[in-house]
Amino acid sequence: MPYVNIQVTREGTSSGESKTTADQKARLIKGVSDLLLEVLGKPQSSTFVVIEEVEMENWGVGGLPVADYRKQLAAEKAK
Amino acid sequence: MPYVNIQVTREGTSSGESKTTADQKARLIKGVSDLLLEVLGKPQSSTFVVIEEVEMENWGVGGLPVADYRKQLAAEKAK
Amino acid sequence: MPYVNIQVTREGTSSGESKTTADQKARLIKGVSDLLLEVLGKPQSSTFVVIEEVEMENWGVGGLPVADYRKQLAAEKAK
Amino acid sequence: MPYVNIQVTREGTSSGESKTTADQKARLIKGVSDLLLEVLGKPQSSTFVVIEEVEMENWGVGGLPVADYRKQLAAEKAK
Amino acid sequence: MPYVNIQVTREGTSSGESKTTADQKARLIKGVSDLLLEVLGKPQSSTFVVIEEVEMENWGVGGLPVADYRKQLAAEKAK
Amino acid sequence: MPYVNIQVTREGTSSGESKTTADQKARLIKGVSDLLLEVLGKPQSSTFVVIEEVEMENWGVGGLPVADYRKQLAAEKAK
Repeated sequence: MPYVNIQVTREGTSSGESKTTADQKARLIKGVSDLLLEVLGKPQSSTFVVIEEVEMENWGVGGLPVADYRKQLAAEKAK
Repeated sequence: MPYVNIQVTREGTSSGESKTTADQKARLIKGVSDLLLEVLGKPQSSTFVVIEEVEMENWGVGGLPVADYRKQLAAEKAK
Repeated sequence: MPYVNIQVTREGTSSGESKTTADQKARLIKGVSDLLLEVLGKPQSSTFVVIEEVEMENWGVGGLPVADYRKQLAAEKAK
Repeated sequence: MPYVNIQVTREGTSSGESKTTADQKARLIKGVSDLLLEVLGKPQSSTFVVIEEVEMENWGVGGLPVADYRKQLAAEKAK
Repeated sequence: MPYVNIQVTREGTSSGESKTTADQKARLIKGVSDLLLEVLGKPQSSTFVVIEEVEMENWGVGGLPVADYRKQLAAEKAK
Repeated sequence: MPYVNIQVTREGTSSGESKTTADQKARLIKGVSDLLLEVLGKPQSSTFVVIEEVEMENWGVGGLPVADYRKQLAAEKAK
């Protein structure tokens, strides 16, 4: 009876998209459910997958909102 | 000092509604707080209840987004 | 397809117990499942309830570990 | 590799604002990351902070939605 | 920068084991990280996976602790 | 009424310790509560902080359990 919670930043990762698409979500759900069946033998009907999309300004890493963190990394690389 | 997190799909469950109503949320909050007082003696003022409504396409079960899963179940029953 | 997460401090609340008993947990599970059926019409077979017991020193309130916070409250009342 | 999840009600706490501002979020992210570095020596690049803003009607305390709970407290104080 | 939380009951799923093995956990971690790279292009170094094993008596489904629920299902099938 | 959940690997970070100490936990609780008061004006009595210590083999990053990931990083640096 697994429960899986996936948190990602709300942003597009395929061209022309500004957020995770329904198709990408369906692939995440299928992939995680397949994995739990394969590794632990959990029947798919008892696996819940919940995807949470988090606004960019609500996600922090490196002590900064993620957009600022990426700019900082890019600037360091450019040195 | 309990903390309770309730995750449900964002959809209407009473007629004419497309989401959980404020009244339904208030009943969930009261019900959970009553339960923790009754079973564990926790004072209601120190029980937090947080309700999260999850978009249908973000909730998976049976390896599928929940809407597809329900269609599949319905199709199987109709056989 | 609700998922409910209940977090409580790991401590006994009935006489002679040092933690939540299996019977108390079963009552919490039943109570929450009944509530979601009653308020939102969710079938019980698709409601997951996960109880997490948190060590006292891992739970903070009022800027203090919960045991210290209770002592502080008791001392204030005794004034 | 810490992960920190901060849940707050979605409401303004500085004058003229109806929600937590981007600047306040950046200060929360920095503050938590500094704290984990200081107390546990965790490098900031491996600390994730996720802020979740919860609608007022989705947050319960004292057996009531938080707005009703505050009204009740205010009424008691006014007695 | 995804964060994935996997909750499973604490029980063995391979012969002779009473809990999820370190090898099974490693496969879950790899599988989820591969999936997020493949579907969303997320670099593996910024994907956190946290596995939580939940005591059987702390997991409820169908209004019952999971062990009781399984017995009930088995009894129904045996009819 | 904030709720803050802090997840860290279960390991010692000060000399001679194999886990986070009670004193370190108290400092995390105080630090987070101070921060929420300072940034959002939240009274400390209504801030909950819950610390979860996660077994090393249950935490993954870079597609690996965290211990293996650190070894890999160290090996790369040593090249």
